[in-house]
Amino acid sequence: MIVSHEKNIEKVEFDNPEVKGASMKAIISPKEGWEGHVMRVMEVEEEGYTPKHSHPWPHINYMLEGKGILFIDGKEHEVEKGSYAYVPENKLHQFKNVGKGKFKFICIVPEKGHK
Amino acid sequence: MIVSHEKNIEKVEFDNPEVKGASMKAIISPKEGWEGHVMRVMEVEEEGYTPKHSHPWPHINYMLEGKGILFIDGKEHEVEKGSYAYVPENKLHQFKNVGKGKFKFICIVPEKGHK
Repeated sequence: MIVSHEKNIEKVEFDNPEVKGASMKAIISPKEGWEGHVMRVMEVEEEGYTPKHSHPWPHINYMLEGKGILFIDGKEHEVEKGSYAYVPENKLHQFKNVGKGKFKFICIVPEKGHK
Repeated sequence: MIVSHEKNIEKVEFDNPEVKGASMKAIISPKEGWEGHVMRVMEVEEEGYTPKHSHPWPHINYMLEGKGILFIDGKEHEVEKGSYAYVPENKLHQFKNVGKGKFKFICIVPEKGHK
């Protein structure tokens, strides 16, 4: 059992030339009891983005704050607080902050996809 | 693949004498591609609560809005936007809205726990 707050979790910045201003906090993982999955809170700074990439696992997203574009499979989707997405494995995708202030979302991946 | 917004999903009210002012929207499930799990957005009105109950599956929570109490295993925890919890199987628990306006959170359960 765990009840906590994301403010207690250390933020990890992505050190990758294809990423701009993105960071991650892993909050619920097998360590907290969730077998097979990891829930992470992602933050992308104004004008920032995640890499345009694909991987052999899906992810589950829920948008928390700000305004973004989810590029997936050749198409751009506007997303904001309350938007959600299921991104299947092996689809080229990217999140971009296109609003003012930070763009924040939940990203859940299978355990093997958490890096 | 799906990209959508929770406003497009129909809200289901809980019809149970042990529940007050609580509703659910199921947003990502096996139907959208997530094998084995369902992500729901729960809303509890001011002074509302979920039942004090337990079940043989865990759930994963992330608080979105408002102020609540998560009662679990005999103890009350204050939760708010950015709080998270892993509630193991068979632990007696309850969510209560103790703030102004609605209390809103994500509740992810294994497929068998989605009703």
